[in-house]
Amino acid sequence: MMIKKMKPSLIALGAVLGLCAALPASAQFQKAEDAIKYRQSSFTLMGTHFSRIAAMAQGKVAFDAKAAAENADILNTIAKLPYSAFGEGTDKGAPNRAKPEIWKESAKFKEAADKMVAEVGKLDAAARGGNLDQIKAAVGGVGQSCKACHDNYRAKETN
Amino acid sequence: MMIKKMKPSLIALGAVLGLCAALPASAQFQKAEDAIKYRQSSFTLMGTHFSRIAAMAQGKVAFDAKAAAENADILNTIAKLPYSAFGEGTDKGAPNRAKPEIWKESAKFKEAADKMVAEVGKLDAAARGGNLDQIKAAVGGVGQSCKACHDNYRAKETN
Repeated sequence: MMIKKMKPSLIALGAVLGLCAALPASAQFQKAEDAIKYRQSSFTLMGTHFSRIAAMAQGKVAFDAKAAAENADILNTIAKLPYSAFGEGTDKGAPNRAKPEIWKESAKFKEAADKMVAEVGKLDAAARGGNLDQIKAAVGGVGQSCKACHDNYRAKETN
Repeated sequence: MMIKKMKPSLIALGAVLGLCAALPASAQFQKAEDAIKYRQSSFTLMGTHFSRIAAMAQGKVAFDAKAAAENADILNTIAKLPYSAFGEGTDKGAPNRAKPEIWKESAKFKEAADKMVAEVGKLDAAARGGNLDQIKAAVGGVGQSCKACHDNYRAKETN
């Protein structure tokens, strides 16, 4: 069912029950294309900030503890955002690379998303601590969680 | 001058002087199109989270203090991001609506960006406080700062 079609009835339900805040997160997007654009934007920002820390972990850029902590803090905020934009009916509506498995095995997808958020949390903690070895280990964990989701849930081509 | 062309010399300079972290923020993007995609993504997320608070301020959605505070907190993090992606040479490289005035009157543009960040900071403070009247006032301030920048620095059509 499309978000576009769901929304009026859900809003009416929310208004009646006074449960707006308890509605599925997907209902926060008016159209499927809004949800797609939102999650893609989240991943763009995550990729930018993670890659700046990864470059330090890999020795490609001089380690700057303050910059690492700032980037990890931003990453930690944004990492929590995209999951809410994978609601039912957001598989189509704009070009995107989300595989049908996201909705077919939604519990496993949620687990993978939670894993990524947890790994980013560890990276944020490591970056606050300022120890490069701990940051390197945490970057590895985040990278693996990115890759796991991309392997399982991101198609090679846009649909 | 394009970022793409600037980068190697800037990186070499940074490596020699050990001043990577002090390089202009624009140098953090490998290509102009990366900077454009990054700032557009920031605005997409900002618009989403601001509109959720604005909907409460306008009475279109029931006021939920916790949701308002969460959205304002996210907005407050992301509002600080896009300015860094308006470096010299990022006017072209991907379809975008940035007006040449951004780089012609860069001090005024910086002032407008700072104003927006300050207004978002006030909204974040108001949302933490949970007082709807204060949130309404702060939403107005943020809205005006969005509009001022859009009026002056955003073209109607993509270039």
